[in-house]
Amino acid sequence: MTGTSEPAQIVTAGLLVIGDEILSGRTKDKNIGYIAEYLTTIGIELKEVRVVADEEAAIVEALNALKSRYCYVFTTGGIGPTHDDITADAVAKAFGVSIDHHPEAVALLRARFGGAELNQARMRMARIPAGGELIRNKVSTAPGFRIGNVFVMAGVPTIMQAMLDFVAPTLKTGAKMLAETLRADAREGDIGGPLADIAKAHPETMIGSYPFFDDKRGPNTNIVVRSRDPARLAAAKAAVETMLAKVREAL
Amino acid sequence: MTGTSEPAQIVTAGLLVIGDEILSGRTKDKNIGYIAEYLTTIGIELKEVRVVADEEAAIVEALNALKSRYCYVFTTGGIGPTHDDITADAVAKAFGVSIDHHPEAVALLRARFGGAELNQARMRMARIPAGGELIRNKVSTAPGFRIGNVFVMAGVPTIMQAMLDFVAPTLKTGAKMLAETLRADAREGDIGGPLADIAKAHPETMIGSYPFFDDKRGPNTNIVVRSRDPARLAAAKAAVETMLAKVREAL
Repeated sequence: MTGTSEPAQIVTAGLLVIGDEILSGRTKDKNIGYIAEYLTTIGIELKEVRVVADEEAAIVEALNALKSRYCYVFTTGGIGPTHDDITADAVAKAFGVSIDHHPEAVALLRARFGGAELNQARMRMARIPAGGELIRNKVSTAPGFRIGNVFVMAGVPTIMQAMLDFVAPTLKTGAKMLAETLRADAREGDIGGPLADIAKAHPETMIGSYPFFDDKRGPNTNIVVRSRDPARLAAAKAAVETMLAKVREAL
Repeated sequence: MTGTSEPAQIVTAGLLVIGDEILSGRTKDKNIGYIAEYLTTIGIELKEVRVVADEEAAIVEALNALKSRYCYVFTTGGIGPTHDDITADAVAKAFGVSIDHHPEAVALLRARFGGAELNQARMRMARIPAGGELIRNKVSTAPGFRIGNVFVMAGVPTIMQAMLDFVAPTLKTGAKMLAETLRADAREGDIGGPLADIAKAHPETMIGSYPFFDDKRGPNTNIVVRSRDPARLAAAKAAVETMLAKVREAL
């Protein structure tokens, strides 16, 4: 049986990317695509992403909007040792809690940085909002943290990825979204009509159409059929294949 | 004179990326970084980015938030010929206006697609909210459009880029943000304290600190000093250089 009788559990997430350098274009974000693919793979549906500047009011507002709306919120950026790293303070403000040096985080830094090396700047990285639990990682000493449904991670991709690996086993996940990609060998405009009919006939299957340029034949289209239910996916996929065969014949 | 006596005019923008394929991770967005860099170069400050799914309510909500907040809003995605292209309808809804086939857009499509080729699906691409003006491009026939302070562009990077070139000369721009990058040759944690002091002493200059991994010496840091005022930029840059020389001597 395919489970069509029970609605699949859906676990949602929002992502908040924090950093002037992304908005100025100086740094090209590599985390959105990575996190999107990662969450899809483990059965969490990323519903919204926001990118905001290193400004407390902007971070607090976006965080409050996302954390009330989705099961989980992930943030990247702004947890380093410099004055422009204000994410932890903004998160504390959004949750209405105090922020202080976390003994476990201080111990981690002490084990890594001796004597004068553990200066006030580095100690900033041990400041965690009250109630926060550390997110360890194998790349750097400074931890991220989880508070409520919010996971605060580093902006450096290798560190962020290690943090995501650390938290993934603790996340509730839903039925995985299954997807099949069909190469149309036709232009989007040639299949738009019949594809819309198929989408209407399969309302619980998501059907996306993505044009691309094919070096051999010019404008081409990928059709992506998505569903949490294998039987529904197969039915919609078959309908698209039949339609494509007819369209190609007529071209 | 450097213009410090008059406050520089600031022109802000928001960006709305529309597409399930970005949120599923299937397609990695290439437009955010491009648009961010482009706007910075011409003197427009990108303040916020949102990525939402192909869902009308989500698009309308994000659009209303961004268009009331920033001078300009740019959108990418969802203006093709298939059923999942719902951006034009969502924009019409956000502005509370009707939507219909735009004569100029229809003429463009007619010139390109003969007879039966100009089917209902392709005609979708000529549907423009009332009051919208076309955004032409040299790559594809189907236009984007501008309505109020919102610029609706394609999701395919080459087409979006051509549309941005088309609209750029019509945009009001502010004083350009100037930036200087200084390679610290020190770890972020070693410069965090003195850098914070410099940031405090130069409140109208933005100073960002970005760690990176240097193959030769390991953890390293780029410091980016930004200001619209050349004199302020130079003063903050000089302060950072003096500080870095001292820190390196002590290491």
